[in-house]
Amino acid sequence: MRWDFFFLNRGSWRAVVFNNQGILCYFLEETLLKSLGRQIMVELYDCDSAILNDVEFIRREMQEAAVRCGATVVQNVFHQFNPHGISGVVVIAESHLAIHTWPEYGYAALDLFTCGEEINPEIAFDYLEKKFKAGSSSLIEMRRGIVKPRSGELHHKSLKKG
Amino acid sequence: MRWDFFFLNRGSWRAVVFNNQGILCYFLEETLLKSLGRQIMVELYDCDSAILNDVEFIRREMQEAAVRCGATVVQNVFHQFNPHGISGVVVIAESHLAIHTWPEYGYAALDLFTCGEEINPEIAFDYLEKKFKAGSSSLIEMRRGIVKPRSGELHHKSLKKG
Repeated sequence: MRWDFFFLNRGSWRAVVFNNQGILCYFLEETLLKSLGRQIMVELYDCDSAILNDVEFIRREMQEAAVRCGATVVQNVFHQFNPHGISGVVVIAESHLAIHTWPEYGYAALDLFTCGEEINPEIAFDYLEKKFKAGSSSLIEMRRGIVKPRSGELHHKSLKKG
Repeated sequence: MRWDFFFLNRGSWRAVVFNNQGILCYFLEETLLKSLGRQIMVELYDCDSAILNDVEFIRREMQEAAVRCGATVVQNVFHQFNPHGISGVVVIAESHLAIHTWPEYGYAALDLFTCGEEINPEIAFDYLEKKFKAGSSSLIEMRRGIVKPRSGELHHKSLKKG
């Protein structure tokens, strides 16, 4: 069996493990798992549609969310669609924080990829949930890069710029 | 029950559905599900470490992969870590293609977020898998933004730039 992908739910913090054929194998406790990266995906429903179409507001608040959760902002790229919708990525030294919005459905997809243990993702998501006036939300976490280090400890990226 | 998150495995194309408490409910067929976005995550293991640390190679090949799979490239941002590792995002009109590499472990995490049905993600991933000389790989797909449109059809973003 290979631990290709698994993810943790905010409520239970259990992992669901699949083998190479996509068959569900079993649940594991989080403490058994070591990974290079964490990817956290948030669904924001019933948001304020005008806010979801305001590219400068979203650029500013995404950067603010990144800073508040402990990330180091490297650069950002935001793109306004015609007639509505925004895509954007804040590249952080710890990986990235991305957003895609559908104002016509009041929906925004957030995606935070981090390495190391310095970032507290919930701070960013709670902040953005309020700023976008989301009526409901949900979160899922995946662990990325399951490797078996010789020492038992994983070495995360340096946060110094190259 | 709420269909917060579910994903499809390349082999079986079935969905795993969880309720609000993170409890596995049941499997569904893909055809039952409608979503605004698709997020596809690929793990590449046992890659060529030198390649995974070559920022210009990765920037070029990520853009090439985006074009080959049918995406419209808007912008790109790549960041070289010290002493090793690269993070980068190609913002495409259809959303984004991101990469994070750990050369010291021969591992790269790829992440493609798309909307609409124009993109063929497997073309991008097969291309990058070969370019990075990956020894093994795996893929998972998640559907993002499960909404209930009045007409029964979802409207995807226009690809025209704003």
